[in-house]
Amino acid sequence: MQITPRSEDYSQWYIDLVRKAGLADYSAVKGCMVIKPYGFAIWEYMQGALDKMFKDTGHVNAYFPLLIPKSFLSKEAAHVEGFAKECAVVTHYRLKNSEDGTGIVVDPDAKLEEELIIRPTSETIIWNTYREWIQSYRDLPLLINQWANVVRWEMRTRLFLRTTEFLWQEGHTAHSTRAEAETETKQMLDIYAKFAEEWMALPVVRGVKTETERFAGAVDTYCIEALMQDGKALQAGTSHFLGQNFAKAFDVQFTNKEGQREFVWATSWGVSTRLMGALVMAHSDDEGLILPPKLAPHQVVIVPIPKPLPDLEETINKITAELRAVGIRVKIDNDDQNRPGFKFAEYEKLGVPIRIGIGARDLANGTVEVARRDNKTKESVAVDNLTGHVQQLLTDIHQNMYTRALAFRDEHITRVDTWDEFVKVLDEKTGFVLAHWDGTPETEETIKQETKATIRCIPIDAPAEDGVCVKSGKPSSRRVLFARAY
Amino acid sequence: MQITPRSEDYSQWYIDLVRKAGLADYSAVKGCMVIKPYGFAIWEYMQGALDKMFKDTGHVNAYFPLLIPKSFLSKEAAHVEGFAKECAVVTHYRLKNSEDGTGIVVDPDAKLEEELIIRPTSETIIWNTYREWIQSYRDLPLLINQWANVVRWEMRTRLFLRTTEFLWQEGHTAHSTRAEAETETKQMLDIYAKFAEEWMALPVVRGVKTETERFAGAVDTYCIEALMQDGKALQAGTSHFLGQNFAKAFDVQFTNKEGQREFVWATSWGVSTRLMGALVMAHSDDEGLILPPKLAPHQVVIVPIPKPLPDLEETINKITAELRAVGIRVKIDNDDQNRPGFKFAEYEKLGVPIRIGIGARDLANGTVEVARRDNKTKESVAVDNLTGHVQQLLTDIHQNMYTRALAFRDEHITRVDTWDEFVKVLDEKTGFVLAHWDGTPETEETIKQETKATIRCIPIDAPAEDGVCVKSGKPSSRRVLFARAY
Repeated sequence: MQITPRSEDYSQWYIDLVRKAGLADYSAVKGCMVIKPYGFAIWEYMQGALDKMFKDTGHVNAYFPLLIPKSFLSKEAAHVEGFAKECAVVTHYRLKNSEDGTGIVVDPDAKLEEELIIRPTSETIIWNTYREWIQSYRDLPLLINQWANVVRWEMRTRLFLRTTEFLWQEGHTAHSTRAEAETETKQMLDIYAKFAEEWMALPVVRGVKTETERFAGAVDTYCIEALMQDGKALQAGTSHFLGQNFAKAFDVQFTNKEGQREFVWATSWGVSTRLMGALVMAHSDDEGLILPPKLAPHQVVIVPIPKPLPDLEETINKITAELRAVGIRVKIDNDDQNRPGFKFAEYEKLGVPIRIGIGARDLANGTVEVARRDNKTKESVAVDNLTGHVQQLLTDIHQNMYTRALAFRDEHITRVDTWDEFVKVLDEKTGFVLAHWDGTPETEETIKQETKATIRCIPIDAPAEDGVCVKSGKPSSRRVLFARAY
Repeated sequence: MQITPRSEDYSQWYIDLVRKAGLADYSAVKGCMVIKPYGFAIWEYMQGALDKMFKDTGHVNAYFPLLIPKSFLSKEAAHVEGFAKECAVVTHYRLKNSEDGTGIVVDPDAKLEEELIIRPTSETIIWNTYREWIQSYRDLPLLINQWANVVRWEMRTRLFLRTTEFLWQEGHTAHSTRAEAETETKQMLDIYAKFAEEWMALPVVRGVKTETERFAGAVDTYCIEALMQDGKALQAGTSHFLGQNFAKAFDVQFTNKEGQREFVWATSWGVSTRLMGALVMAHSDDEGLILPPKLAPHQVVIVPIPKPLPDLEETINKITAELRAVGIRVKIDNDDQNRPGFKFAEYEKLGVPIRIGIGARDLANGTVEVARRDNKTKESVAVDNLTGHVQQLLTDIHQNMYTRALAFRDEHITRVDTWDEFVKVLDEKTGFVLAHWDGTPETEETIKQETKATIRCIPIDAPAEDGVCVKSGKPSSRRVLFARAY
């Protein structure tokens, strides 16, 4: 099975690539995926980088239960509306042999008094716990994150982008003042943007969601939005200012310095394995993945040509030791069952940033062939300069990937002032559309119905600008960012 | 609330300590715990060390679904017997508003055709997946691990030791030969033993389980068994040789080098957050935790006495920078709301291995006071020699903790030859009892009924020795290890 070209069927290209590059696959359970070792290794590098950024800003990890009492979900009115429709519900706690002996059945005697929900997100169970942990202003802030799996029952799923179970981190912080919680919300948004740019080579727009697109239970939802190669947007991370909504729902109060009781202020923020989908769709090509060096499980692969020879081996070991000594992740492919051409195609598919080929002639010249995955250029490099060269190249590849994605993104932010233009850009040019909107959920909904485009965000740095809504003609004070989205 | 002394109520001491040292607490969901930040930080160090050991031996991580189709559980006959009785069962995938408007109820229209089980362990879903991944001997071995949460419905729970949901890692490997799978099983047991000894300062006995105590679906279950301070044993890790049982249940065959189809050989192995319980119970005292240095979130705490002064601060910053430069985890407590005595008690409770006190008089002398948590000794150390001294002390503390636990364990392995002795040792001296057993499940069960002692394992290094069973008087060829256990 070959990878379907993007031009033929972008959606199928994505699925082919995710499966054939060993990132993930469908499982026997509808909507749930298996994250395969190569895909999981990339996720581990993502986790490592994010976890460090969280800890460097004072956050700690903890773990809260997978199962949430059904009644908790109802305590915050908006929250239950958002999540009750897509919950996995645990009703029993035992199986037994069927009476006809053909298998096992649910034991009706083991019915739970109150059903349990598999967490779709953990605000409710966490704020129920925080009530015990927070008494005084001295207990604040609480800056806690958890790495966890969550389940949201999805009817239409796509590997990484939308799956019934997915992996994520969810930060849940508690503060004594509104201002501090708002600062935290924005800080985490900035961390997500920095991670996207510096680790994923993925430029993002920072913005605020409209009321319609807001997290169920939030006062404000901030987001980072990225653009995929097919011109569709992808929400890559969200950071919510929750106000006192969950504190009120779960009665979490603290005694302030003046001895008065106040409700606690909250934030929550998360990114998920969805980032894996963004990574694939932002950078890869018809030959396979193109991985940014910082997240590549193998940053360099060394392929002896045509096959390992004793002399070659010595040089390869020396090169490898030097590269590893400066922290570069190197794989050596000594497999003698496959020919170099096959291997080259394989490592292109896997998106290894740098491939080093070395044969008898190279050896004689004291050089190796260095091939870049991002732009497919090759050059001959002296073995003596190799380590420094590779280090610089890894930096250059990241920069080139980022610059290329940024140029594509910027070319695909189109300012439009009429409805005809709006529809035309969405259909033909695709990408983000910067347009005036009258600020009402009604117009937002009409636009969505007619074009499938949603307001991705109100960009944080959007300047005030008087204008009229592209759809209703009513006044507007700033442009917002529309797109069709994953 | 104080910590109950061990002599008064060991079980309550444990729960008090786990809660008051900030390791874990009960949650709103019966049997599920919240792992608090300090406890989770210790678990993260455990994870980091184990993960590295797994990767250094060629294993990779992946992720398989949380939910398992009910029918999968029935495919391996012994497996279903072991796990069906304690499963959380998902039967529905949606909630809706109740008709009387008072809350939310399970939507009867959203009933699953086949119920899903929250994984109690993942052999079934993984071997169902391996069928797709394994075609030829070239695809073997598969050396895969996953870090995950699992749910086993427990009626009597205790923080970390037995909880409905717990965190663990589960390795699942596939091999082309029986010998290779057996070697893997033993290798992982050795890794667990090494981890227990070198990271947890916890001596363990390596052994094989009897048929009765074997993992449901295994041919052989190897285990490491540790001894707690109350003389009860605790199974700290298991490694299973699964033979071809799961390959046959899920029809996983490969084509060997001779072109013939064969069933694949399997292992699985796991350790869980239960290790946290073992860590607490093996080492701690009535004042609080005693943490082995390699797993301590703070290896050194610096407490200015009586409070921070400008001159002190400079010295503290210098000391801290030097300690951190060699990789030591240092916390500085500059909080001026609590007195040193209060802080000392607090860090004893938290089990910080080394406390450095520094006051005006120390400053004048160019010394600091260094206090060890493990044996509560104190000494004055010159600031100039401090870093090297602390490094050595961290090594010594680990060694001392290990030696102390080993001496206690060895004193509590008692060879007995009569039934009276057997009962007396269990009741009075406690600990492990090395005794002859006739090898039958019936005798094993009788002993368990009469004494609550189980066969923890047949030690791997147990020499052949003819004797007679302490209970039945029938012949026996080697001694086995009995104990009451967690």
